[in-house]
Amino acid sequence: IRSAIRSIHTEKPPARTVFSPLDTFARRHNGPSQSEIKEMLSAIGLKDLDGLTGKTIPDRIRSVRALALDHGFTEKEVLERLKHIASKNKVFKNYIGMGYTDVVVPNVILRNVLENPGWYTQYTPYQPEISQGRLESLLNYQTMVTDLTGMSIANASLLDEGTAAAEAMLMCWSATNRKKSTFFVDENCHPQTIACVQTRAEAFNINVVVGNHRDYDFDSIKGDLAGVIIQYPDTRGSVNDYKGFAEKIHGYGAQVVAATDLMALAMLTPPGEWGADIALGNSQRFGVPLGYGGPHAAFFACKEEHKRRLPGRLVGVSRDTQGNPAYRLALQTREQHIRREKATSNICTAQALLANMASLYAVYHGPSGIKMIAQRIHNMTSIFAEGVRQAGHTIENDQFFDTLTIKVKGGADNLVKKALAAGINVRQFDTETVGVTFDESCNKAELDELIKVFTQDGATVPDLLSVAEKLNISENNSAKVLNDKFVRTSEYMTHKIFNLYHSETEMLRYIYRLQNKDLSLTHSMIPLGSCTMKLNATTEMIPVTWPELGNIHPFAPDNQTEGYQIMLKELRRDLSEITGFDDVSLQPNSGAQGEYAGLRVIRAYHEGRGDNKRNVCLIPVSAHGTNPASAAMAGMDVVPVKCLSNGNLDLADLKAKAAKHSKHLSAFMVTYPSTFGVFEDTVSEACEIIHSNGGQVYMDGANMNAQIGLTSPGHIGADVCHLNLHKTFCIPHGGGGPGMGPIGVKAHLAPYLPGHPVLRTGGDKAIGPISAAPHGSASILPISWAYIKMMGGEGIKSATEIALLNANYMAHRLSKHYKVLFTNANGMCAHEFIVDIRPFNSVGIEAIDIAKRLQDYGFHSPTMSWPVPNTLMIEPTESESKEELDRFCDAMIAIRGEIQEIQNGKQPQEDNILTNAPHTLAVLMKDDEHWKSKSYTRQQAAYPLPYLHRFKLFPSTSRIDDIYGDRNLICSCPPMSDYE
Amino acid sequence: IRSAIRSIHTEKPPARTVFSPLDTFARRHNGPSQSEIKEMLSAIGLKDLDGLTGKTIPDRIRSVRALALDHGFTEKEVLERLKHIASKNKVFKNYIGMGYTDVVVPNVILRNVLENPGWYTQYTPYQPEISQGRLESLLNYQTMVTDLTGMSIANASLLDEGTAAAEAMLMCWSATNRKKSTFFVDENCHPQTIACVQTRAEAFNINVVVGNHRDYDFDSIKGDLAGVIIQYPDTRGSVNDYKGFAEKIHGYGAQVVAATDLMALAMLTPPGEWGADIALGNSQRFGVPLGYGGPHAAFFACKEEHKRRLPGRLVGVSRDTQGNPAYRLALQTREQHIRREKATSNICTAQALLANMASLYAVYHGPSGIKMIAQRIHNMTSIFAEGVRQAGHTIENDQFFDTLTIKVKGGADNLVKKALAAGINVRQFDTETVGVTFDESCNKAELDELIKVFTQDGATVPDLLSVAEKLNISENNSAKVLNDKFVRTSEYMTHKIFNLYHSETEMLRYIYRLQNKDLSLTHSMIPLGSCTMKLNATTEMIPVTWPELGNIHPFAPDNQTEGYQIMLKELRRDLSEITGFDDVSLQPNSGAQGEYAGLRVIRAYHEGRGDNKRNVCLIPVSAHGTNPASAAMAGMDVVPVKCLSNGNLDLADLKAKAAKHSKHLSAFMVTYPSTFGVFEDTVSEACEIIHSNGGQVYMDGANMNAQIGLTSPGHIGADVCHLNLHKTFCIPHGGGGPGMGPIGVKAHLAPYLPGHPVLRTGGDKAIGPISAAPHGSASILPISWAYIKMMGGEGIKSATEIALLNANYMAHRLSKHYKVLFTNANGMCAHEFIVDIRPFNSVGIEAIDIAKRLQDYGFHSPTMSWPVPNTLMIEPTESESKEELDRFCDAMIAIRGEIQEIQNGKQPQEDNILTNAPHTLAVLMKDDEHWKSKSYTRQQAAYPLPYLHRFKLFPSTSRIDDIYGDRNLICSCPPMSDYE
Ligand SMILES: Cc1ncc(COP(=O)(O)O)c(C=O)c1O
Ligand SMILES: Cc1ncc(COP(=O)(O)O)c(C=O)c1O
Ligand SMILES: O=C([O-])O
Repeated sequence: IRSAIRSIHTEKPPARTVFSPLDTFARRHNGPSQSEIKEMLSAIGLKDLDGLTGKTIPDRIRSVRALALDHGFTEKEVLERLKHIASKNKVFKNYIGMGYTDVVVPNVILRNVLENPGWYTQYTPYQPEISQGRLESLLNYQTMVTDLTGMSIANASLLDEGTAAAEAMLMCWSATNRKKSTFFVDENCHPQTIACVQTRAEAFNINVVVGNHRDYDFDSIKGDLAGVIIQYPDTRGSVNDYKGFAEKIHGYGAQVVAATDLMALAMLTPPGEWGADIALGNSQRFGVPLGYGGPHAAFFACKEEHKRRLPGRLVGVSRDTQGNPAYRLALQTREQHIRREKATSNICTAQALLANMASLYAVYHGPSGIKMIAQRIHNMTSIFAEGVRQAGHTIENDQFFDTLTIKVKGGADNLVKKALAAGINVRQFDTETVGVTFDESCNKAELDELIKVFTQDGATVPDLLSVAEKLNISENNSAKVLNDKFVRTSEYMTHKIFNLYHSETEMLRYIYRLQNKDLSLTHSMIPLGSCTMKLNATTEMIPVTWPELGNIHPFAPDNQTEGYQIMLKELRRDLSEITGFDDVSLQPNSGAQGEYAGLRVIRAYHEGRGDNKRNVCLIPVSAHGTNPASAAMAGMDVVPVKCLSNGNLDLADLKAKAAKHSKHLSAFMVTYPSTFGVFEDTVSEACEIIHSNGGQVYMDGANMNAQIGLTSPGHIGADVCHLNLHKTFCIPHGGGGPGMGPIGVKAHLAPYLPGHPVLRTGGDKAIGPISAAPHGSASILPISWAYIKMMGGEGIKSATEIALLNANYMAHRLSKHYKVLFTNANGMCAHEFIVDIRPFNSVGIEAIDIAKRLQDYGFHSPTMSWPVPNTLMIEPTESESKEELDRFCDAMIAIRGEIQEIQNGKQPQEDNILTNAPHTLAVLMKDDEHWKSKSYTRQQAAYPLPYLHRFKLFPSTSRIDDIYGDRNLICSCPPMSDYE
Repeated sequence: IRSAIRSIHTEKPPARTVFSPLDTFARRHNGPSQSEIKEMLSAIGLKDLDGLTGKTIPDRIRSVRALALDHGFTEKEVLERLKHIASKNKVFKNYIGMGYTDVVVPNVILRNVLENPGWYTQYTPYQPEISQGRLESLLNYQTMVTDLTGMSIANASLLDEGTAAAEAMLMCWSATNRKKSTFFVDENCHPQTIACVQTRAEAFNINVVVGNHRDYDFDSIKGDLAGVIIQYPDTRGSVNDYKGFAEKIHGYGAQVVAATDLMALAMLTPPGEWGADIALGNSQRFGVPLGYGGPHAAFFACKEEHKRRLPGRLVGVSRDTQGNPAYRLALQTREQHIRREKATSNICTAQALLANMASLYAVYHGPSGIKMIAQRIHNMTSIFAEGVRQAGHTIENDQFFDTLTIKVKGGADNLVKKALAAGINVRQFDTETVGVTFDESCNKAELDELIKVFTQDGATVPDLLSVAEKLNISENNSAKVLNDKFVRTSEYMTHKIFNLYHSETEMLRYIYRLQNKDLSLTHSMIPLGSCTMKLNATTEMIPVTWPELGNIHPFAPDNQTEGYQIMLKELRRDLSEITGFDDVSLQPNSGAQGEYAGLRVIRAYHEGRGDNKRNVCLIPVSAHGTNPASAAMAGMDVVPVKCLSNGNLDLADLKAKAAKHSKHLSAFMVTYPSTFGVFEDTVSEACEIIHSNGGQVYMDGANMNAQIGLTSPGHIGADVCHLNLHKTFCIPHGGGGPGMGPIGVKAHLAPYLPGHPVLRTGGDKAIGPISAAPHGSASILPISWAYIKMMGGEGIKSATEIALLNANYMAHRLSKHYKVLFTNANGMCAHEFIVDIRPFNSVGIEAIDIAKRLQDYGFHSPTMSWPVPNTLMIEPTESESKEELDRFCDAMIAIRGEIQEIQNGKQPQEDNILTNAPHTLAVLMKDDEHWKSKSYTRQQAAYPLPYLHRFKLFPSTSRIDDIYGDRNLICSCPPMSDYE
């Protein structure tokens, strides 16, 4: 049974003729020109690209069938077509709430961050010396969250509120050393939050109890209670007093988690002040468009005592070798690539770009601006509440911030119909009750429309201005609806950074000052193995900020989202075709979420066949840390499979382990080409072994950029696979997110694809939701959609070929100077390759020294010490030109010469040009005194190769001391005096 | 009689209430916060802003009436409203041609140049050391133009093709030492070109003869013939052989000017090869949107022998003090601020940003890409020609590139009607004939639509694919319609720069590499006196690239441009209100064009009353160079008026001169506040003097930023005034354009406002057109429209007050360290002030040394040596915060300390920290050897103040040698070897 998605019709451009437009895309996307391709082929002794793939990819897995994609729209055509599709969306005025509201995006942030490749093409700030700008901005984010929630420490974003709640549950559980396994969820949390928590709990055998925090009999579970989550204000808008409740829960030795709303906290006593241990939520309403569900940054904050359990990335303050304060990612050691199968979280890619938008929104408005916005929302809600009462309805929650639950005289169905007819979305609870949530964007005319909807036909429409007057609410006299105990008295965002840049000019310069410190794809290649830092083309990016795509609520009914449905279906179809699968779920928000979703689907499949005992997951030791973490989170026992010394999978070991665990074998996770960058020719055999032992094959699609058009997971024999759209399919990395990790599956797994409690999605036997929004971060999917549409079948295959060519060309050049690890029998690597640094350890040089020295050459380091410690893994992608590849090779070769000087004793093993790297301007401008003590000159330090004179981004700090920072953990903005 | 424009209704947002949205704009536009305003006031000993204006502006000219503008839309509202208005435009498919075509804008250029404040907020590159990026790009532009036209030298853009043709005429005239005054214009030039030439000729008493170059009897005019202009291909699409004609004209000792088309020249023998002396045209079709007429960059190229007469800005290659090649504006000495009333050109602001777009388009496509585009256009034209013949019509021009003149069977009227009904614009010549012009954007579906229009009802529509086959035209076999002698054989764009960056990644990095060398408003304040470098807000900029505004042909009929009409009318209304005038013409493309237009209107007014002898224009010696140049171009005799030693106008001299020239007095030009930055209290008196002697008062509106809401030209007594929308009304400077210089007039002058030969515009007795397009650069007018709409009456007045406050605060701080020239009796300056550098000349320090040293402090210099030699004129604008003002003052004060060291003998008069400025990284990283010979340290040179450690843009070259460059003039890309 093929799923219907494979056969949907997608429009194709006409065949090429003399009339065909010339703005074809593939030649713009691929870096090398035709003549460069020839040069590179001949350098590695090959005649043509076919020869290259022939020597690189095992015959038996090569797929001969051409991809059934069209042959490529031009840039102009694809935008016209998408505009046409997007215009089928209907942009309604939203009062749905549920964690998502309309916003007023400051245009200075929209244009200069979200639409600016200087920001969106940055990588995760693992090289802090060339990332101080975004690290500062993320630190601002953490500070803002810490301040508003009243907690001690916050991370730099999570994927969404639903998964943040699931992370919180696991934090509570692990705080009991996994001894107490009951987690209470208040029924007045958002439904998608409850569902995400439930999905996650299952695999850990955590017992989720949903109930009302007021009347639930906690004594019945107190012995096993790890924690509780309540929402503040709750999903029906009530602002509840949780102080006593928190005390009670603490009395049981359990944790209190508050799902909350940053805007509300500008007015309400923060969770940290009434006893919450963890606070989380969505920061979307701080200036990030709805986007039909995302991308948005979730926030996550906790008390000091939990800081080493914080999931996700955390920016901290440390110091550099010159003793200056400097930012970097803190506590990296607790990340999943260390904990692996002991992890409770697999979060890797998060939502950095959106966290930056939210933090800049806070910087732009400042505490008093945020307060005014919150107050205005509250004023309008208060006035509207009175209007609604005048219209004869009943407000069910008398303590509210922005949300009213309204018992509708005459019934909810009619009202909702009337609202829809007026272009308005409200939330319907049941036949009697609706909810309305107000936001920053609402204006008087819209409120008048809304109150009209609430007015019985023929009755006079309440005049909201009079209502306001009656209530004595004015610009100078705010609504005073809230009970005193809820009114926030503590200050927030008092740090100078939130009180400086309130004019557009200052804001613009602040954004540029940050940007100008950071290396991005606008500067040079970022050859990160496994991360595929390819071109994020402008034409792909343009639709992301179209209002037709941006202003859609994730829970807008399907008949308002026809445009999205078309686009999503076409994307699912094209991704199915590319992966050789039968259906695709677009829900997971990152690669790691895809892994987790895929494994849960496999588990459900086994269970669906009554096969309840399959819980072993075989994973090669070379796998990415998210693999074992995801397996653990899916409730599986991880059994490692060995690798041979040539890097290949140890097939004998696999066979043995599969046989040994045959009865319990659930899945095998494999990355292909391997994380070592090789197309192993045993992969199909491995799949057969697994299948014959009753297991399913999960393919980690991080390396899809080496497969497309030449082979596919489906063709190879996998059952499910995730795709990092932010790698292979051109969604930019955004400095650490957003990403998207959809999964493709064979037909037998399709019924289990994840569902959603609010909008129907996924298969007939859908597992619970993996993400808060039905289609994940829907508003960035046009990027991948447009990429595929513009490349077409041939173009996208050519990208793969050139990715292989670029990598092999570099490996060829570098192999004369470095040991290149792991190639196939023909000496070929896949789309990436590993350079061994261990031979230099004897003279004190480690991979990190080369990484830092590369900054002096104007480059971002390749992936460092993964998958093999003390190596560098290089992935050029197809988008880099030969000139750029050569420039990078020249740099690596020059560094090899520098290492030779150490080996020759010309430079000492300590205090040499590598160990002292990177060299900042401050260091470079030290007097000769300094340089006399060095075994190299200032010029060598600064301009080791001539191209650097053309342009160079200098690192803004010297090498940063990670250990110092982790010992003295500071994760919010330090006082300005530290910088003087 | 008040003109109707003053009373049109413009929509207003509702009054502020508790419901009012919070994204108000004025507080974002104005730099200082309320508390900073208080601090600054108190620093200068004032209580409030009223006190400030009271002491600054003479009572008798202060206007008490509040501006009748609305009170300001929010950012969100203004975009919604403009979207609504713009959507009333109908975007038709255009085949009108006439120098304007649809385009395929490369999105990588659109987003990263036109939508990027790093590019659009740059100033004219007068400080070359921090402008090498855009200078390189403009040099590429010149090289591209030189190559494609086959001429020797090209400038860096002019305003439009019409004015470029007028400039060419004057160049021919001045090549005869103004002895020969007949200029022949071929009748097959574009009508707007002919009209612009005629307008310009009048005032110089040049005799313009319009005729057919083939049959005109040149012997009859040969004794007086200065030059001829023909078009290639001509306006009816014919490619003519002008070789013999050029020889004939040269035989008369006259020049041959070719109006031409860069795209056509990719295929046609270039003008330089058949004898043209000057070539010009519009570069719009190189990737710049139509924009209802602009902005676009006109190009202008000529033979070597005319190079010192080239109008406009010219980028040249020189070298810096370290001997490295470096770009800068060449031959500045021939600019109008030197020639003044002897000028034949007043061009100042040009079209740098659009020239950069066009040059990057050329870099992106390269010569073979451009050739392919041109060939495709030609193929389609050839195929279409045959299709049209098959449909029974007659093609009148058998040698064509992209344009067909078609005699229509059945008459043109019907055809045009049918076309319009199908959403298509063609050009109608007369009742029998239409023209169609093809462009890069046309596709098969559109051609099919068009051929349908040309098919008689009921007849079979020619199948263009079959036509192509019949003609044997395919992707691999191009149309061969052109006579061999027209086929270009010479190469072009062979320089490496056009052959490197053809992938998007490479293009993106090239754009950023250029940008990262240049200082713009994204870095720091650019306190250029007279230039008003204020915030160009994102919300104002966003509509500029909306397709509803961008894709409209300048000659689209009015019923397709309702949106534009509404916006233009509202802008005219608001500008009338602000200036105190009765009507406004939006035609002039720059301040200087406004001056010229205004003076021509005055002249027409006098003549309209039979007063033919009024040709004297009084101009204060302090006036900007464009003033006398414009007066000369308007055919007036310039009589200078003295200034007093306090900078004020010498009223006695004015009185005397006015009386003396009473019978011939045409106009008085006055800048207010004066170019010295002072509100003179004699201005009204001066106006009365002029009026009582029969003259008209022309106010140069460059300093309007000091007037708005507090007084106005109309209130003061002027009759006409131009507004530099690119100063006061937020159109960004774009690195030297685009700009807009509309003029406001009193009712008696309104009938004379400029008209246009193609679309009706201007008054009943309109003078000829000043610009090629009816409404100038219409697509940037939303910027000013939105600015006014968002600021509202009160906001825009507050901007003025803060501009005055900022200037006076700075003057106050700096006056303790420098002599501040020219204040009023209360010691107050207007919105700008002049700092005297002459006291330091005795120790060898000139204004330029401080300008260059300011680069070391991260700042762009204020206006240098204008209006007073060896001074700096500082204009902060209202958009700068107190912090930024203080930072700049700190820098100036620190420099004063450095000068003191020279005065004290601590640093020598030569070779000191100022004369060696700016200090590049290359210099700063020289060994101590170098620094030992200096009287200051490396640290002092690089980081004289602590804020520089936060971020600093280092100049990319040392000080540039202008004289060397002018002596060895090179104005196209030098060979790469020069850089090695
Ligand atoms: C091989 C591999 N698997 C999984 C992942 C996780 O993907 P994500 O960061 O999107 O969660 C990565 C990311 O770097 C990876 O390289
Ligand atoms: C006083 C004054 N008048 C006229 C002009 C000319 O304006 P534009 O450059 O727009 O032609 C300027 C420009 O700097 C100016 O400062
Ligand atoms: O270019 C100007 O002189 O403003």
